[in-house]
Amino acid sequence: MDGFLAADIGGTHIRVAAYPTDAIKPILHKRIATRGENTPTERLIDLLVEVSGSLDHVLGIGADVPGYIDPRIGLIYTAPNIPGWRNLPLQAILHERFRVPVALGNDANMAAYGEWEFGAGRGHQDIIYMTISTGIGGGVISDNKLVLGHHGLATEMGHVTVWPEGPMCSCGHRGHLEALASGTAIARWVSEQLALNSPSILSSSPKPTARDISQAAEKGDALAQEALGRAGKFIGQALANYLHIFNSSIIILGGGVSHSGPYLMDPLRSALERNVISPAYLDGLQIKIAELGDDAGLLGSLALIRSQST
Amino acid sequence: MDGFLAADIGGTHIRVAAYPTDAIKPILHKRIATRGENTPTERLIDLLVEVSGSLDHVLGIGADVPGYIDPRIGLIYTAPNIPGWRNLPLQAILHERFRVPVALGNDANMAAYGEWEFGAGRGHQDIIYMTISTGIGGGVISDNKLVLGHHGLATEMGHVTVWPEGPMCSCGHRGHLEALASGTAIARWVSEQLALNSPSILSSSPKPTARDISQAAEKGDALAQEALGRAGKFIGQALANYLHIFNSSIIILGGGVSHSGPYLMDPLRSALERNVISPAYLDGLQIKIAELGDDAGLLGSLALIRSQST
Repeated sequence: MDGFLAADIGGTHIRVAAYPTDAIKPILHKRIATRGENTPTERLIDLLVEVSGSLDHVLGIGADVPGYIDPRIGLIYTAPNIPGWRNLPLQAILHERFRVPVALGNDANMAAYGEWEFGAGRGHQDIIYMTISTGIGGGVISDNKLVLGHHGLATEMGHVTVWPEGPMCSCGHRGHLEALASGTAIARWVSEQLALNSPSILSSSPKPTARDISQAAEKGDALAQEALGRAGKFIGQALANYLHIFNSSIIILGGGVSHSGPYLMDPLRSALERNVISPAYLDGLQIKIAELGDDAGLLGSLALIRSQST
Repeated sequence: MDGFLAADIGGTHIRVAAYPTDAIKPILHKRIATRGENTPTERLIDLLVEVSGSLDHVLGIGADVPGYIDPRIGLIYTAPNIPGWRNLPLQAILHERFRVPVALGNDANMAAYGEWEFGAGRGHQDIIYMTISTGIGGGVISDNKLVLGHHGLATEMGHVTVWPEGPMCSCGHRGHLEALASGTAIARWVSEQLALNSPSILSSSPKPTARDISQAAEKGDALAQEALGRAGKFIGQALANYLHIFNSSIIILGGGVSHSGPYLMDPLRSALERNVISPAYLDGLQIKIAELGDDAGLLGSLALIRSQST
């Protein structure tokens, strides 16, 4: 059978799947650790070779990468979690090795692309996708096209200032959305409150994670509920601003934190509705949780290479 | 001679110009007051008829409108400064009357389009255009396309929160860029400081305008310089965020306040450079003052109708 290979490259694992030309159920799907005795590039190539054995002909390869990348020239500028990946012409390397079309994308962009093609965003032309996990990232479809920018660095949606006096962000700037509403930020805020002896069922765990906080909120813990509500409020405020910029018909929320339920989502919706300058921005607007889970990037990479091979 | 008509519709004046098929020097250019004995729509049609007399055949009509408008369906939702323009199907009305293709756009979007086609943005594929005058608006070209959104309401660039505790915006929300850095906001801040007896050569004028403040800054007035620097800092911060979203190759600044010189521009550039998360966003970035002045919207409307008529 002919088909495509898609790779999802993360800081912990590399996953590769082989797909038929026109279905999204993989023929074969394997994963390995990103770090090992040989380099991540060699490990990726070995896994692509292995999984390609399930296809008669490989028609193309799509891959998503966690980092700054220019998809137009297939160059990875930096991928902080992948050892040695700096100014790496990965597209050229894979093309040289496999002699088929290769398409690369940033992981959040590819997740947006996957949700657009196969997930919660099907049929929409203007999509804001925001992923909320350790950090906050995103991707935007504007009039049926992924917004990339002239070097491919667009839609870094976590790095907008929402509170100038707010806490320091991982990027070294103050008050970004990521520093206030990512899983890391939620966990840090709860730890700070626990250190001030705020009452909570979390006070026995020294370093609660965003997942612990989400579970505590469901059990009725007031501090955990406040933490999620606070994050939801900042996300809603930022999303209102993004609606003024993109006037999208759907907002898709991905990443672990997006599954925190009403304690996050209700304040998020309220802040969004309170902050738009006109109800016209809410007209026909859908807000949905992402549907593809961990496979969004893989399926986005598949959609991208398919779109470039027809 | 065959040619196109372009209309620039403002709260004070309606301007209409007739252009040859492939030049930007108008054959005839007229303007009338927006308000008079008959309705703005009738006045617009009369002026279009009058100016069309300079052409043998009208090939199409482009127009920019100050307000919320869906250019895909040619509908004006609201245009607060034009009496009676609410849910007005202007494109259909003009098409019915003239029987030629008609294209409409929001005024800031059309100014962006004009600067892209004929002005400071020529040759760029990714443009942020921001106009700073009474209010703050803008338009974005992403990968050679105007960003519109699903109802055409995109790129309301003045209505992003840059300081949550900041002053109230004209739209009724707190801390928007427009409330901190528009000409109106600059003038209001100076008036507040004068009421607190801040020393300034402006203290003799009861209500200094943004233009007065700009002139006072040039004469060395410290309060006026501080007012422009403060606005520049907020604009630079917002533009850094927009670069993270669009990764554009050029920022074009239009509107009266953009001509305030180094007292505005130096703090703007510093804030922009200080706030980007990676120098990659500055790589190849140009920052330019708009070139087309008051004709940007007219020429954008011309470019739009030409692009739709070929």
